[in-house]
Amino acid sequence: MTRTLATTPATDGFRMPGEFDPHQGTWMLWPERPDTWRWGAKPAQAAYAEVARAISEFERVTMCVSPGQFANARQVLPEAVRVVEMTSNDAWVRDCGPSFLINDAGEVRGVDWRFNAWGGLESGLYSPWDQDDMVGQKILELENVARYAAPLILEGGSIEVDGDGTLLTTRECLLNHDRNPDLGLAEIEAQLGEYLGISKIIWLEKGVYNDETEGHIDNLARFARPGVVMLDWTDDTTDPQYPISLDAFQRLSQATDARGRKLEVIKLPQPGPLHMTQDESRGVDVVEGTQPREAGLRLAASYVNFYLCNGAVIMPLLDERTDAVAADLIQRGFPDRRVVGVAAREILLGGGDIHCITQQQPLARRR
Amino acid sequence: MTRTLATTPATDGFRMPGEFDPHQGTWMLWPERPDTWRWGAKPAQAAYAEVARAISEFERVTMCVSPGQFANARQVLPEAVRVVEMTSNDAWVRDCGPSFLINDAGEVRGVDWRFNAWGGLESGLYSPWDQDDMVGQKILELENVARYAAPLILEGGSIEVDGDGTLLTTRECLLNHDRNPDLGLAEIEAQLGEYLGISKIIWLEKGVYNDETEGHIDNLARFARPGVVMLDWTDDTTDPQYPISLDAFQRLSQATDARGRKLEVIKLPQPGPLHMTQDESRGVDVVEGTQPREAGLRLAASYVNFYLCNGAVIMPLLDERTDAVAADLIQRGFPDRRVVGVAAREILLGGGDIHCITQQQPLARRR
Repeated sequence: MTRTLATTPATDGFRMPGEFDPHQGTWMLWPERPDTWRWGAKPAQAAYAEVARAISEFERVTMCVSPGQFANARQVLPEAVRVVEMTSNDAWVRDCGPSFLINDAGEVRGVDWRFNAWGGLESGLYSPWDQDDMVGQKILELENVARYAAPLILEGGSIEVDGDGTLLTTRECLLNHDRNPDLGLAEIEAQLGEYLGISKIIWLEKGVYNDETEGHIDNLARFARPGVVMLDWTDDTTDPQYPISLDAFQRLSQATDARGRKLEVIKLPQPGPLHMTQDESRGVDVVEGTQPREAGLRLAASYVNFYLCNGAVIMPLLDERTDAVAADLIQRGFPDRRVVGVAAREILLGGGDIHCITQQQPLARRR
Repeated sequence: MTRTLATTPATDGFRMPGEFDPHQGTWMLWPERPDTWRWGAKPAQAAYAEVARAISEFERVTMCVSPGQFANARQVLPEAVRVVEMTSNDAWVRDCGPSFLINDAGEVRGVDWRFNAWGGLESGLYSPWDQDDMVGQKILELENVARYAAPLILEGGSIEVDGDGTLLTTRECLLNHDRNPDLGLAEIEAQLGEYLGISKIIWLEKGVYNDETEGHIDNLARFARPGVVMLDWTDDTTDPQYPISLDAFQRLSQATDARGRKLEVIKLPQPGPLHMTQDESRGVDVVEGTQPREAGLRLAASYVNFYLCNGAVIMPLLDERTDAVAADLIQRGFPDRRVVGVAAREILLGGGDIHCITQQQPLARRR
């Protein structure tokens, strides 16, 4: 068999399906680094375990765990969750994992992007990131899924597709000079087309305010289905999130997708604003070269960072004042799915949320 | 799903099939520890890669590799071999891996034995062995195969089954006080019956002369099929192997198996005797607590340490003076299989051979 293909997905008739399409299962990475997660990551591990448990009610979950944490993770996680050894630098499989593809015959392949920890030595969040960069290859190989090795530095959270030829992203992230400084917009568009089977890219400007990923779309705007986008929103015109969301709303409202459709936009109210407390910033190791986690930090909290699994939406619970309203709006956007809320502030303290810590593997059709 | 069962295989109708029965694939561990393998294990890695390549012509092979060696192993191994991350203390999956079982419906489960590096702190070959001890669980979990956690300390190379109710082993190993000091012969027989679905145990006395495993049966005597055993042999009455093989021959000749059959014994001439050269002992790290690899060491070389995969016998090539004779005898014992020789002296220098570094996973019947 050929594990790494020399062709490209577009040439071979492969494309990235929507997250709402049927899954074979979900991948996650186990958190442990003490300079991201307070108190030796024990509270974060409990939060990740709860996300895994919630998803495992709907589909298979595989938790990838370093050798030193294997026994503990196996103990903490429900038996339904498969635990496999896989070393990483942190626990964001959305960003360092593969993007799975499918073709019309129902075969599954994967794109393994290059990864530089959200900005490399210049503005990345930690160093090194060598183990993260191997996660994509390791997952694909473990599953015997053929791999395309893309030359692009790209995190899975920086792109959002409708499975129908359309991709949403932001200039803040994909055109950032700390990712692919030698490539212009046209070249990046060409590569996204080639590796994701995309024919139309809708560019937004910026991601959520103070998002340390530098503008990941998956915290700002997501497809509920082709033609329908959910957008992180605030009505507070004095909030720094307001102009970002307004600009995104205007661009989405004016855009058409790959099939020429106008987009319906559902606004999800942002929680908070939320900030890291003194108590929450204690217990995090301070390491030079790693993103600081200081008290008072404005958290990039957003309900848009939900995860779709078979028959359900796993949504972050972040703020008692807004959780119910958000859940109701999400339920209306996904009338056929169960909406399951999971307490997610502990994940948010590490810089992301439920969508950032999950990666879907589409269901292959038996041939 | 239940990953670790509270019952036993015998209760549930599971038994260990013969190695000659159809395989789903083969598991191996990648060698790297510099106090077992000379020159940073690079020659051993080449030898293991050749074994993996040979087997992969007949069935799927998965090589388990530590995070630090993943990229190198992936580079060295043929694409047909699947590489997955799995940490171990050394590279003997026969001994620290699971024993796979099957039932009449063709379902597969596995026994995960306890492991103490061939004798624990008293006479084991290295310390610690914590990662080896997790290999069985990790392999079963990765494959979603339900696990029986056996209370016995046991290495897979210390047992040999005919898949028909009979087990061969040695007193030197299974009754050694450095394995299960609190269990007598009757209790060990009972546990083997319970965990392997065995009804008849044929006890031989000792394993191959100077075998550092303390008497592993898989270097001395193996089933070619039910009723037929291949035995490591020498006609040199002055060789210390002679009385061992003679005693084994006599016991096998007098024994009947679980079905009441007499056993046919095919004698395979031992290579050599072979000894570690000065040159071969150089380049091995000397570490207190690890088995020394000194020049002049009599190597426990045996052609019986072959591996059966789908349609083939992978046999060790060890001595030009005897390789062809042994290959001919093996071919006669397995008339329907291709006999494939692989240069194996480098593996032997580490203390085992092809059977010791492989573990078969039987083919499950689709339900």
